[in-house]
Amino acid sequence: MTAFWCELAWLRAGPVPSVRVEHADGRITAVSPGAAACPGDHVLSGLVLPGLADAHSHAFHRALRGRTHGDGGSFWTWRQAMYALAGALDPDDYLDLARATYAELVLAGVTAVGEFHYLHHGPDGTPYAEPNVMAEALRAAARDAGLRVTLLDTCYLTGAPGEPLEGVQRRFGDVDVEEWALRSAAVPADEHLRPAVAAHSVRALAPADLAVVAATARARGVVAHVHVSEQPAENAACLDAYGRTPVELLAEAGLLGASTTAVHAVHLTDRDVDLLGGSRTTVCLCPSTEQDLGDGLAPGARLVAAGSPLCVGSDQHVRADLLAEARSVELHERLAGGRRGVLAPAELVDAVTAAGHAALGDATGGRIAVGAPADLVAVRTDGPRTAGADPAQLVMVAGAAEVHTVVAAGTLVVQDGQHRLGDVGALLTAAVDRAWRATERRSSPPPARALPASGATTRRPS
Amino acid sequence: MTAFWCELAWLRAGPVPSVRVEHADGRITAVSPGAAACPGDHVLSGLVLPGLADAHSHAFHRALRGRTHGDGGSFWTWRQAMYALAGALDPDDYLDLARATYAELVLAGVTAVGEFHYLHHGPDGTPYAEPNVMAEALRAAARDAGLRVTLLDTCYLTGAPGEPLEGVQRRFGDVDVEEWALRSAAVPADEHLRPAVAAHSVRALAPADLAVVAATARARGVVAHVHVSEQPAENAACLDAYGRTPVELLAEAGLLGASTTAVHAVHLTDRDVDLLGGSRTTVCLCPSTEQDLGDGLAPGARLVAAGSPLCVGSDQHVRADLLAEARSVELHERLAGGRRGVLAPAELVDAVTAAGHAALGDATGGRIAVGAPADLVAVRTDGPRTAGADPAQLVMVAGAAEVHTVVAAGTLVVQDGQHRLGDVGALLTAAVDRAWRATERRSSPPPARALPASGATTRRPS
Repeated sequence: MTAFWCELAWLRAGPVPSVRVEHADGRITAVSPGAAACPGDHVLSGLVLPGLADAHSHAFHRALRGRTHGDGGSFWTWRQAMYALAGALDPDDYLDLARATYAELVLAGVTAVGEFHYLHHGPDGTPYAEPNVMAEALRAAARDAGLRVTLLDTCYLTGAPGEPLEGVQRRFGDVDVEEWALRSAAVPADEHLRPAVAAHSVRALAPADLAVVAATARARGVVAHVHVSEQPAENAACLDAYGRTPVELLAEAGLLGASTTAVHAVHLTDRDVDLLGGSRTTVCLCPSTEQDLGDGLAPGARLVAAGSPLCVGSDQHVRADLLAEARSVELHERLAGGRRGVLAPAELVDAVTAAGHAALGDATGGRIAVGAPADLVAVRTDGPRTAGADPAQLVMVAGAAEVHTVVAAGTLVVQDGQHRLGDVGALLTAAVDRAWRATERRSSPPPARALPASGATTRRPS
Repeated sequence: MTAFWCELAWLRAGPVPSVRVEHADGRITAVSPGAAACPGDHVLSGLVLPGLADAHSHAFHRALRGRTHGDGGSFWTWRQAMYALAGALDPDDYLDLARATYAELVLAGVTAVGEFHYLHHGPDGTPYAEPNVMAEALRAAARDAGLRVTLLDTCYLTGAPGEPLEGVQRRFGDVDVEEWALRSAAVPADEHLRPAVAAHSVRALAPADLAVVAATARARGVVAHVHVSEQPAENAACLDAYGRTPVELLAEAGLLGASTTAVHAVHLTDRDVDLLGGSRTTVCLCPSTEQDLGDGLAPGARLVAAGSPLCVGSDQHVRADLLAEARSVELHERLAGGRRGVLAPAELVDAVTAAGHAALGDATGGRIAVGAPADLVAVRTDGPRTAGADPAQLVMVAGAAEVHTVVAAGTLVVQDGQHRLGDVGALLTAAVDRAWRATERRSSPPPARALPASGATTRRPS
């Protein structure tokens, strides 16, 4: 098998010149800094990073990109469109959309994605004959697109504390947490899919059910993810229902810890920060969503100081650019605190590589090191956007458009900016069109609950 | 001369299909929606926007991109590097850097740039034999790169209220405001350079001098630009010195009004907002700088409501992506207010087109309309980042990487993403390297004033 020779490779915490990387069976077997290229080596120009991790994805949200801002586009424009989509997609629609979405992620250098998957059942909530057919669509999408998916099989049981699921939400729900655990346990692992679990949020699970998800994760030895405190109203509803913040509720349910990732974590009390950091819970920030939905600026650096690793996610796929997500973590710190240089470039690279893969259950990923998956992402250092920059600071300037080659598990998936599937723009256009045609056929009304007068501080409902 | 046929063209406030655009002598002579392409027409695919305006540029700051974040990179890392550069560049260095920087802007769809130009004199402050040789470098750079520059010839007289210029700042300063007015009046207009004026800031000009700049702009019939309230400490120093906010001081000096653009305008009182809006002063937001330097979130929508047109600038060239700057204006509103849809996509397009050109003294620019400059920017709608989006909302998803063709004053400058100058990355690499080599040769110490213990709230010094 061909080795890769890197003009510059990111080893540990920075770029090192002339690095030869050998691999076998999808894993790195030797890393030789300062080595000459051997005949037959595949030469990677620019800066070669480890494969990137997108730790939080809702693949089907890709169909919403650039479609929810009409006349300004309120929160409710977004929600209505998202629910309409969620109500309409069948397994083939879902596969098409996820394949194209994942291919776009691979073009951006992503080699592992965490899919926060809650579109489990048929449109009226009836399980499919094959109960995990939607999860299997994600597996097929990952295989075709050339990345690995960690299936964060999501437990989603209530529309709000004590309230049943309504309308399209019935697709998301299992009968109860035990049914969820049984169904989700039936998804086998393979080289393209790593099973794991998620609790949707403190809105969608009662405290006892959160505890079952935590216990399930421990029993299976898999990571658990959970949305937390994305919007102020989510916190207010939790305090109303339980007299506790969402993070406090998760702590009491035993859901915090080094195998858990809390997603968003924007609106936190000091005690919340201490609980997350003290338990070494990873926090996944999704800056493009937190901008798009007006969630706000998460206290990333305070969480790091308290002990939480950070990773990043593309979430609703407003953009598929994980380097930009990592950069935005630092830029949000600067906006919030009025200071530059809160998180160093190497910390941002860690968030989008090793920390992200660890959050997805792969402690070996996101490193150019022996034993790691042979995932390499070559980024142009000589293009208009990156020319003149210090390669050690490339995360502050480069984006998806600078990724020219992607190797996943030893296989070349992207070369010269072209995905092996061909024209990813055309795949996306077709898949998005198909999704909206399905939505038009099945005009699925959103839940009947009245819309508040203003969406300003209302929790994101899914 | 060849006409252009646009698959979709942005006319007034949205995309219209099948638009034929004829032109002569650099201006549009006919716009025909719903027309068929004629033989010999140049076909532009995707969405064709009017040429974009970058209303605030310091071209030489491009050399700082990706070089000031080492070990996190404080505000003072940035300032020291910027002053070192400013102290070292000779007219040929400046031309090389500006040419490459402007070529990158053209690749991003920019057809007019406002250069806030204060690097007037030799490194020790002695005027060059040809006093406007540095301005002439900008004219040559604009001509080569294929855009128009509005030369915002900047008056910069004090290091702080009542304090003389020190060190490298002496390059920026004229003897007094009359000398500035005489020198700047000697720069002739041509098709690539439009003379105009700027007052650097309330820090760098006494109130009486601000009034002279305002009178000069009126007498010459040109626009005036001024930095205002980028950082809280700038406001504090102004209040200390004058008992007024910077905006109040500008108002008293007669510098506000429909021909003036206030740049940044981040930290404003309610009265400041009323003064800017009530006088119809344009506000130029530079979101990527305001993130990078931790300036904060400007009250863009409040300024619009008060009466100020908005435009955008790339400023220090952290990125050269004006569509991204326009999008960030809305995203900053969402972060600040927790609401989506504050400014509609068409308002953002207006900021980066018609309002921007108007701020640069061209009331005809930024429109696909008869009499406007024949500036057309074709943006891919079928690439991975834009596929599936509503073209009316493209400003929320597209960026510089999606610009495939740029026509400036009727001339094709970019085709298939390639600038007529060739490899812009290579031009930038060479120009940035040259600038830093010049800096190493002439290690120009920054002004002797002691650095504060924290850069957190200190004004940006230039």
